[in-house]
Amino acid sequence: MADTGPAFSLAIDAMGGDAAPEVVIDGLELAAERHPGARFLLVGDEARVGGALALRKRAAKVCSLRHAPEVISGDLKPTAALRMRGSSMRIAIDAVAAGEASGIVSAGNTGALMALAKIIIKTMPEIDRPALAAIGPSARGDVVLLDLGANVQCDARNLVEFAIMGDAFARVALGLTMPSIGLLNVGSEELKGDDRVRAAAEILRDSHVGAQFRGFIEGHDITAGTVDVVVTDGFTGNVALKTGEGALKLMRDLLRQVFTSSVPARLGYLLARPALDRLREWMDPRRYNGAILLGLNGVVVKSHGGTDALGFAHAVDVAMDMVTHGYNDRIRDGFDRLASRKRLAPSPS
Amino acid sequence: MADTGPAFSLAIDAMGGDAAPEVVIDGLELAAERHPGARFLLVGDEARVGGALALRKRAAKVCSLRHAPEVISGDLKPTAALRMRGSSMRIAIDAVAAGEASGIVSAGNTGALMALAKIIIKTMPEIDRPALAAIGPSARGDVVLLDLGANVQCDARNLVEFAIMGDAFARVALGLTMPSIGLLNVGSEELKGDDRVRAAAEILRDSHVGAQFRGFIEGHDITAGTVDVVVTDGFTGNVALKTGEGALKLMRDLLRQVFTSSVPARLGYLLARPALDRLREWMDPRRYNGAILLGLNGVVVKSHGGTDALGFAHAVDVAMDMVTHGYNDRIRDGFDRLASRKRLAPSPS
Repeated sequence: MADTGPAFSLAIDAMGGDAAPEVVIDGLELAAERHPGARFLLVGDEARVGGALALRKRAAKVCSLRHAPEVISGDLKPTAALRMRGSSMRIAIDAVAAGEASGIVSAGNTGALMALAKIIIKTMPEIDRPALAAIGPSARGDVVLLDLGANVQCDARNLVEFAIMGDAFARVALGLTMPSIGLLNVGSEELKGDDRVRAAAEILRDSHVGAQFRGFIEGHDITAGTVDVVVTDGFTGNVALKTGEGALKLMRDLLRQVFTSSVPARLGYLLARPALDRLREWMDPRRYNGAILLGLNGVVVKSHGGTDALGFAHAVDVAMDMVTHGYNDRIRDGFDRLASRKRLAPSPS
Repeated sequence: MADTGPAFSLAIDAMGGDAAPEVVIDGLELAAERHPGARFLLVGDEARVGGALALRKRAAKVCSLRHAPEVISGDLKPTAALRMRGSSMRIAIDAVAAGEASGIVSAGNTGALMALAKIIIKTMPEIDRPALAAIGPSARGDVVLLDLGANVQCDARNLVEFAIMGDAFARVALGLTMPSIGLLNVGSEELKGDDRVRAAAEILRDSHVGAQFRGFIEGHDITAGTVDVVVTDGFTGNVALKTGEGALKLMRDLLRQVFTSSVPARLGYLLARPALDRLREWMDPRRYNGAILLGLNGVVVKSHGGTDALGFAHAVDVAMDMVTHGYNDRIRDGFDRLASRKRLAPSPS
């Protein structure tokens, strides 16, 4: 494979995130071990990145360094980021657009990454609007949730596209052969939801993913793991993701208080600690690091700016899964099937 | 007060909920102790309710029984419920509309309750659309969230109304003098949200609750307790509430697994148990039972259909708070102030 594809598996924005470039390079040190054969184009300030890279032997072996004189700060507006041609993020994205790398991972400014990627890497011709996806924990295994805010206002067609992209992503990132798909809606019969979700459900039921489509689901179904792919608009998805994270954080904080509230409680914590540590590890936000911009002509993964090396390595894992399992080909296939079904479908009676 | 107001504090639908009428009457047995002086009009099958009531002395003393020959089942469509004139829910609502009681509590069919209440008790003239609200836990105390699904599609005006109603409700139900108010939105600068929330924010900033308005908040702010009143449309609010509940449930289920996973973990649980029990009690969903339909000419509270006597008593608590603290007068006052501010405001330059 390596001799036919791009020279680099991924371009890496070395300067994005709170503790760049050190955390990025430490993350690549882990990623190099997990993905033998992967090659990374590391973009950033030559002196700083080169110095840090010299201390990490495994990373140094699989990275090529490319200088970028500028850095996009966390609070820069996307419009200003677009004008900055020498930023590490921009040069990394340019490498994807030029076919040098199959994708990019950045822990930098989210809005800038989304804007630059859309304009330079460009949306796949089959797709109207790219979507932001993430993986999260549920009682029955990992779940894909999209859109998380790339599209605040969506119509039925957008929701259908998200379902097709989410299906392809769950196959690649979760290794599922027939991911189940649900459309997020308000619960009770009486409050049926809006025209948008009803129209999207109708299209999906009749599409090639019809057998995977479980219809409407509710908020609590996300963590219950009722379906593998949760589809919703960017406004609702963003609020749902953050509300769920907030509720889990509240519970973690309260448990910390519980286990320090008395001597017996402290002792109890010590006794239950191995099991509690396994739970903490399983729910570790770093394991779920990486928001993925789906629907572009290349793999684009946003790592959390505040994550550590382990978290960054997980974001690289997601991007590598997408590169090695041909995510974009799967999407293209999905849309081809959606289009052919539409042509074959009888006209409404 | 008692001699000038309605004969009954609340009309109670004795037949609503999974274990009616027993749970309802057991709940009133608790409520009678908490609200001395309250009088309840208990509506349901005379024989069944009378038999159960005879066993509960405190409840029997403060309840008057009114016969209703029919019961609205949980899966009945609201349109069908509207045609059923002899249901316990309908007769209880009729009593509110006739001025015999200040409000109603029902654990029955949500859609039917909302439809009947809107049509028979009617929306306050100041208000365009009633909203469904609930109280939930946060790191900094209880939080009011609305709308939870009464209005799936909302415009800026609706959101402003929800803020005014939520403000009045937080004063009455949480006992706050200056509740802080936040408008739920997607987070980052770049994804700004839609026109609707921006327009609502502008109106609120300039209104009489301007000093209480904290602007946009994100999903994780709900459980962080960043504000006392979280305002959003019914679609997003419904999903947020259920997603948060789902995340907390996942954590509870996983903790149960942790504490039964080994002998030391079991022992640890026993040692930490008093503190864990306090946490469980604090987060007990029964403490937060009661969804409140705000903006009608009477108090309307929906108890969860599957709750127990303690949960039903909490729903009665919320309704009694609203009745005794003149919730509807406070709303009216809020809208008067909103309207006068509008008249006084200079025309846009």
